[in-house]
Amino acid sequence: MERVEQHASFGGRQEVWQHASTTLGCPMKLGVYLPPAALAGQPCPVLYWLSGLTCTEQNFITKSGVQAHAAQHGLIVVAPDTSPRDPAGTLGVPNDAAYDLGQGAGFYLNATQAPWATHFRMEDYVVQELPALVESHFAGQVQPGRRALSGHSMGGHGALTLALRHPGRFASVSAFSPIVAPSQVPWGQKAFTAYLGDDPAAWAAHDAVALIAKAQERLPLLVDQGEADEFLATQLRPELLEAACAAAGHPLTLRRHAGYDHSYYFIASFLGEHVAWHAQALKG
Amino acid sequence: MERVEQHASFGGRQEVWQHASTTLGCPMKLGVYLPPAALAGQPCPVLYWLSGLTCTEQNFITKSGVQAHAAQHGLIVVAPDTSPRDPAGTLGVPNDAAYDLGQGAGFYLNATQAPWATHFRMEDYVVQELPALVESHFAGQVQPGRRALSGHSMGGHGALTLALRHPGRFASVSAFSPIVAPSQVPWGQKAFTAYLGDDPAAWAAHDAVALIAKAQERLPLLVDQGEADEFLATQLRPELLEAACAAAGHPLTLRRHAGYDHSYYFIASFLGEHVAWHAQALKG
Repeated sequence: MERVEQHASFGGRQEVWQHASTTLGCPMKLGVYLPPAALAGQPCPVLYWLSGLTCTEQNFITKSGVQAHAAQHGLIVVAPDTSPRDPAGTLGVPNDAAYDLGQGAGFYLNATQAPWATHFRMEDYVVQELPALVESHFAGQVQPGRRALSGHSMGGHGALTLALRHPGRFASVSAFSPIVAPSQVPWGQKAFTAYLGDDPAAWAAHDAVALIAKAQERLPLLVDQGEADEFLATQLRPELLEAACAAAGHPLTLRRHAGYDHSYYFIASFLGEHVAWHAQALKG
Repeated sequence: MERVEQHASFGGRQEVWQHASTTLGCPMKLGVYLPPAALAGQPCPVLYWLSGLTCTEQNFITKSGVQAHAAQHGLIVVAPDTSPRDPAGTLGVPNDAAYDLGQGAGFYLNATQAPWATHFRMEDYVVQELPALVESHFAGQVQPGRRALSGHSMGGHGALTLALRHPGRFASVSAFSPIVAPSQVPWGQKAFTAYLGDDPAAWAAHDAVALIAKAQERLPLLVDQGEADEFLATQLRPELLEAACAAAGHPLTLRRHAGYDHSYYFIASFLGEHVAWHAQALKG
């Protein structure tokens, strides 16, 4: 782990680290916010944040205002990049010219299809390598095993599906503007076809709406969605999550916000409530 | 005025507007945050924010978290671009390849020297055209004449010098990491030579430390400065402002913050206190 940025922030420290990911076969960057409590030597739980299409580790840490809330509640916040990267083109990481496939669009799953399968293993990265790395590197500052998960758009899909696929690994999960049913919308259909092939069962295993029906753990979901979101009707379709949760008896708090769009202005407006909600769950 | 962006934010609305500036001879963009109180029809005072070198109207509105504080205190926030612009190169706005001269580096003064004098008139823009435009276009939402001024780095220089040069126009002024004595540091010496020529009197008229000695109005200054700021010793030198204020009996609250750098992580950490301070003054 090499630290490539550090900035004092709300009494704590916003850092950016880079490491050689064995899961992804490339260097990966992650934002790490250490609240004042962690700097004072008090082990803190970790909120993992998964960003959306085109994002790197920078978007959330520069635009969301998360540091104020994390400082207040004593949470470490870890925000990784959204896919393997290969800016110099020397590592064999495949890519696509479109913004919604390849680098910047990992969809938080392990690809099974060529040419993606070797490097595009974001599920293993987020669930296995990243927490192990964080809990080992920041030993003494991190409360091992106390983890929450949240994200936006593609990262909201990542948060919901990874929490549902790995019961017990996260104390709480929330999402902003998530792709709740990737099997039924263009972003998801394109990515799943490329990464997973044509098998409907493989798709269902990474689709929050499909996973809800057979979830072993009824972890409550907190979801915020803007009603002026430009992707609401075509890509996000929160009513599908609402129906799936109602059918399965899965606890869901879905809040629709009039006037709000898909941007970080929306995330920033309600992020404080998400952080407070995760902090409450992590204390339990 | 044409609206080019709008986003719901903390119950209010973050907008970006573009207009043809007669002062600068080019289109100019500005961020405008309208708090919930303004949207509800209650006239609100305006905090003007001046950004630093290389910034546009975007940096402050996307990175500072100002909207939460402005919503809480019922302030409109106006953040203009930092200089005339001519991206297509068709308007005759001069430029320089360096980041600290020309477009993105207007230094909040009216240039007197060729080739800058025609377009580089940011003092007139910020003090005259911009408030007139805002108070006319947002009539009913803006409390006319109730203005506060703040800024960062080059914009901190702008805030201090424009408030000192125009007594009575601003109810309060504050700055983050300001260039307090441009006549004595490389950024200022380079810009002043280009924009104002070699006349020491012209330089002194746009130098906060020089202006403090003869200020007609003893408007209290609130200044925050990070002690890990990479430009502290070479470009910012807050001790010169401290000495000038002490000598003149000018009220100054200068807060030095251990560990903080020159970035928006620093601004965001203390911006809430600045907004509260301006709100208090604007109520008077």
